[in-house]
Amino acid sequence: MEGKLAARLDELLRSVSPVDEDAARDTQKRWDSLAKPLKSLGLLEKNVAKIAGIHGSSRVDLKKRALVAMCADNGVIEEGVTQTGSEVTAIVAENMAVGSTTVTVMAEAARTDVFPVDIGMATEGCLLEGVPKEEGELLSRTLLPRKVRRGTRNFAKGPAMTREEALRAVLVGIEIAGRLKAQGYDILATGEMGIGNTTTSSAVAAALLSQPVEQMTGKGAGLSDEGLQRKIKVIQEALENLKPDREDPMDILVKVGGYDIAGMTGLFLGGAIYRIPVLIDGFISSVAALLAMNLEPLSRDYMIASHVSKEPAGQLILDELGLKPMLCCEMCLGEGTGAVAALSVLDMGLTVYHRMATFDDMNVEQYQPL
Amino acid sequence: MEGKLAARLDELLRSVSPVDEDAARDTQKRWDSLAKPLKSLGLLEKNVAKIAGIHGSSRVDLKKRALVAMCADNGVIEEGVTQTGSEVTAIVAENMAVGSTTVTVMAEAARTDVFPVDIGMATEGCLLEGVPKEEGELLSRTLLPRKVRRGTRNFAKGPAMTREEALRAVLVGIEIAGRLKAQGYDILATGEMGIGNTTTSSAVAAALLSQPVEQMTGKGAGLSDEGLQRKIKVIQEALENLKPDREDPMDILVKVGGYDIAGMTGLFLGGAIYRIPVLIDGFISSVAALLAMNLEPLSRDYMIASHVSKEPAGQLILDELGLKPMLCCEMCLGEGTGAVAALSVLDMGLTVYHRMATFDDMNVEQYQPL
Repeated sequence: MEGKLAARLDELLRSVSPVDEDAARDTQKRWDSLAKPLKSLGLLEKNVAKIAGIHGSSRVDLKKRALVAMCADNGVIEEGVTQTGSEVTAIVAENMAVGSTTVTVMAEAARTDVFPVDIGMATEGCLLEGVPKEEGELLSRTLLPRKVRRGTRNFAKGPAMTREEALRAVLVGIEIAGRLKAQGYDILATGEMGIGNTTTSSAVAAALLSQPVEQMTGKGAGLSDEGLQRKIKVIQEALENLKPDREDPMDILVKVGGYDIAGMTGLFLGGAIYRIPVLIDGFISSVAALLAMNLEPLSRDYMIASHVSKEPAGQLILDELGLKPMLCCEMCLGEGTGAVAALSVLDMGLTVYHRMATFDDMNVEQYQPL
Repeated sequence: MEGKLAARLDELLRSVSPVDEDAARDTQKRWDSLAKPLKSLGLLEKNVAKIAGIHGSSRVDLKKRALVAMCADNGVIEEGVTQTGSEVTAIVAENMAVGSTTVTVMAEAARTDVFPVDIGMATEGCLLEGVPKEEGELLSRTLLPRKVRRGTRNFAKGPAMTREEALRAVLVGIEIAGRLKAQGYDILATGEMGIGNTTTSSAVAAALLSQPVEQMTGKGAGLSDEGLQRKIKVIQEALENLKPDREDPMDILVKVGGYDIAGMTGLFLGGAIYRIPVLIDGFISSVAALLAMNLEPLSRDYMIASHVSKEPAGQLILDELGLKPMLCCEMCLGEGTGAVAALSVLDMGLTVYHRMATFDDMNVEQYQPL
């Protein structure tokens, strides 16, 4: 089965092609015709043009937007690296369906449908089998059953998952991106819920960037100084024991990653495969984005950075991706909250793009550098 | 008349008192009770609590919001420091009333009323006399006649304005803040339009912070490298000739400022006097905020930073103010666009604050540091 899944992933990645540079250029041309100083809306202009390149059209529309929240548990929490247990993953995931979590409240304000996914929660439930099929309508506000396993293994004691499981989780993300694109969505926001997932993200980041663990690791949902030291030590020892291969992103994911990270990696790859822009959320999501870029460099051109997380490595990962965030609100909540908040700013840009008068309309000559 | 205006300003500033710390604390307490990691919405939480302190109530409401755009011309444009002339100030100011400028398009999306003010445009019109009266209803989308003079004098040849004019323009800002507060507005956003006003702002910033002019000066609406060198030289020579007094913010405003900057300084002071939060926009607005803080240190507690401008000194001025921006979109358009864009993010925070479930509702124990 592992071979079959790997072959399916390879096949999908071979279908990725560059964005439509003409559509992006046409969009920038329209920006330049608007009665305002050239390029003066900065990233709002750039991101609208980037989306045009992804959509293949300068008539940029973001009417239909989805947040996909990958929910999974992490065996490493046995080591005391978190404040709460897996029961909180389950409660928050359920509340995502009900609509009472932070991101669902924000998403409603931003007219964004929320798709929580059980990609590996510790709860009971049927496990995924075979290769995911990309057909049928996905329902928002319904916990989508895509359980790869009931949580990862504790990476302090061995690899977090098998290669087959990692592939399966990545393919789930790709599957969901494809289906939502088929359902007419214009943009995807990434989100996650999973107690322990800043620990897995810091471990993946340290391995992927060959950086000291201390610099990649923060207090997550609010660890004490002592808790932070324990978290750093657990990651350091795991990396020493498991020796993930820097040249093989999938090996890093297998040894110290999580199903949520793998699922988001799939969403980013799916964005490039199915040509739909995917918003990066915060630290955990950006680590998944970096994995995706390492698996398929073109996928970066389908990603939009939303905010820079308060986690210490947040800015560094965005720098590695070569992407600039729109928000710097010192948020560190996860769930996709940064991505959804950034949508409201992107909307501002889009409103100006579509509705503002041009220099011709206003009877003003276009500004020329003096 | 100068003495009468100075006495009026002193009297108004003596009425400034600290914000309501209890209301701010109650608001943070509610944030802490919401079912999410503590403080994880970063600046959204802090700014909502700050507004509560200003309003004196933890029932924070931002339903009624106004953008005040100070429009004025600057004599220094004779020196070739800009790409366009005063006619563009007039066209954009008129279009603010019509609703076709960038900020008016954004403001409509953010349900914000726009109040353009002629505080010193080069166009014809009656000049202000006496002390502004604070009564009567201000109409949005109507260019408010508050002309201090038809543009400042060219500061390459002498002081930009008289002290009486500077005081008059500051008092106009205070007047408008007071009236809008009386009309039920919950928050003010600052904006400006005035060809040449990055030149005046850089000059004021360099004088106020005793910083080299090169580090305070950028390309504004898109100068060439040569234009930038000319702009720097004009400012350097003016500061050498006029020697504004670092210890007297009003003297700096008089010698190298502009009526738009003075008017915004008044808006920030008015925020503190009438207890209404005032959003800083970009570089020009933040220079006005810094002048206000120098005139009345408590006024800082009534300011909210919105975005960090692409102008080189943008971050430095915010650091001097000790305020953190929410957006980092590399915008440099002015008009209040950054402030209005930030309102959409602040709204996200406010939605969560009012509508999200608490730990009690969700049956989850509050996170405790481990």
